[in-house]
Amino acid sequence: MTYALAIHGGAGTILRSKMTPEKEAAYHAGLARALAAGQAVLDEGGAALDAVVAAVCALEDEPLFNAGRGAVYTSDGTQEMDAAVMEGATRRAGAVAGIFGPRNPVKAARAVMERTPHVLLIGEGALSVAREAELPFGDADYFHTDSRWDALQATLAMRAEGRETDDPARRHGTVGAVARDRDGHLAAATSTGGMTAKAPGRVGDTPIIGAGTFADDATCAVSGTGHGEIFTRWTAAAEVAARMRHRGESLEQAASHVVMQDLAPNDGSGGLIAVDAAGRIAMPFNCEGMYRGCVTDGADIRTFIYR
Amino acid sequence: MTYALAIHGGAGTILRSKMTPEKEAAYHAGLARALAAGQAVLDEGGAALDAVVAAVCALEDEPLFNAGRGAVYTSDGTQEMDAAVMEGATRRAGAVAGIFGPRNPVKAARAVMERTPHVLLIGEGALSVAREAELPFGDADYFHTDSRWDALQATLAMRAEGRETDDPARRHGTVGAVARDRDGHLAAATSTGGMTAKAPGRVGDTPIIGAGTFADDATCAVSGTGHGEIFTRWTAAAEVAARMRHRGESLEQAASHVVMQDLAPNDGSGGLIAVDAAGRIAMPFNCEGMYRGCVTDGADIRTFIYR
Repeated sequence: MTYALAIHGGAGTILRSKMTPEKEAAYHAGLARALAAGQAVLDEGGAALDAVVAAVCALEDEPLFNAGRGAVYTSDGTQEMDAAVMEGATRRAGAVAGIFGPRNPVKAARAVMERTPHVLLIGEGALSVAREAELPFGDADYFHTDSRWDALQATLAMRAEGRETDDPARRHGTVGAVARDRDGHLAAATSTGGMTAKAPGRVGDTPIIGAGTFADDATCAVSGTGHGEIFTRWTAAAEVAARMRHRGESLEQAASHVVMQDLAPNDGSGGLIAVDAAGRIAMPFNCEGMYRGCVTDGADIRTFIYR
Repeated sequence: MTYALAIHGGAGTILRSKMTPEKEAAYHAGLARALAAGQAVLDEGGAALDAVVAAVCALEDEPLFNAGRGAVYTSDGTQEMDAAVMEGATRRAGAVAGIFGPRNPVKAARAVMERTPHVLLIGEGALSVAREAELPFGDADYFHTDSRWDALQATLAMRAEGRETDDPARRHGTVGAVARDRDGHLAAATSTGGMTAKAPGRVGDTPIIGAGTFADDATCAVSGTGHGEIFTRWTAAAEVAARMRHRGESLEQAASHVVMQDLAPNDGSGGLIAVDAAGRIAMPFNCEGMYRGCVTDGADIRTFIYR
């Protein structure tokens, strides 16, 4: 049995004109490191859940991506992170929203799944589970990046002038991973700092099971990135699975339909990554680019930014 | 064109042996008042959204039901409320989680939908939207009921002895409404205090679009009540709509399948209320009872507790 792993580091209007060769190389390297971390788990016969958590931790640790270290700032200048995990064999799931502290919010989500009878914990309740699980915490210095802070100041300055920024990084920063392991089990994980200058307390699709994150061995595992409110109202991740289960569509057909026909016409810019029980991978997006990559048993790691 | 309205006040092991004639009459009266409040809107040609909010406000105001006034207590002795609304014509949605303050959390959810670009706001962020909307707030005295406080003390005492209570009121308190107005539009609203002695920060299915609350004019409006974590992992409300949309099932078939075949075998005790675009109503549940009722154009108000 073969394994398969796909990851994303966000989607949006990734303009070639603003990209330098150095920056582009850094993104590819960050994606490749995350794929290698997940692949190491799968290669040894490890579980899809362990692989997606390992891959997302690597993306959270990399300040280039908007999750964990390098998360964007709210309009109050704070950082609030959301994350979720789901395993396809049991449909067990865990999620956290509005937290600041754990270096890897995806591990806090996993702790909610494994250490409590609940699916979603917010704020202090989520942090106390992370503390009980003895997860490493970071302080403001650990999570700070000049570029995110500057993005906040620029956004606030434009907002003061009555304009909203068109900075693509503002709306589309999320990381995620989906995997199928050698036992045929699926898992998904997603993590985000949200939108630059978002209202404190705003929760997007990332920690909402069925919106930004979903996994069911019977169909597929999905992680989304994009305009979170639209992904939530169209239950994007669950809808990919629903089209496969009820209409008999392939992963490719179902994922493409949701991204191109459901989300795109309804202001739902973004994309998603998905893997099915046979290890097939789909990575559709309806915007300029999506940081993404994949690897399967016996194949080389491949990373992409544009179409 | 006819209108239709259905409501619930929670589901679970509602034991006849613990019910008195006086208590039973009070529940029926509370349900009837909520139906009358929603019907008054629909009778005048008002919108489904206004009707479900009016009905849920009446249930929140009635201390017998676990939402708004009379919400249950967390293990810390605090009250944390969740609510959501969704309208079928646009799939617009609003939700709040983990809030204490607004007398009618469902109105706070509506304010998030109407006054922000977001779907879900938690904690202080949600409260500041409620304040801007000038919604009436209540204090601890307003929300307090002796019976809920006593239920917390009893639960904590049992927990101290290493036992969990089997008090049905602990796990299954939620209120909700679904409606179809004379213009053929659908809406859903759900509100809850959660579970007695829940961990602070625990968010169930109520404010999760697609889990406890969903509406789409093309299919149905749904509000759920039961074991929230399972409703979330099975995306219960969205799945009723998905079965109708993709399999061509009737409202009755789809709602019944989700409650009896998806939720029941997976520890998902509870039920849901649903209405479709033709004004048909379904109110399936897989436990002993569900406080519920419905009314349609030209018919009398009917309320039920047991099968």
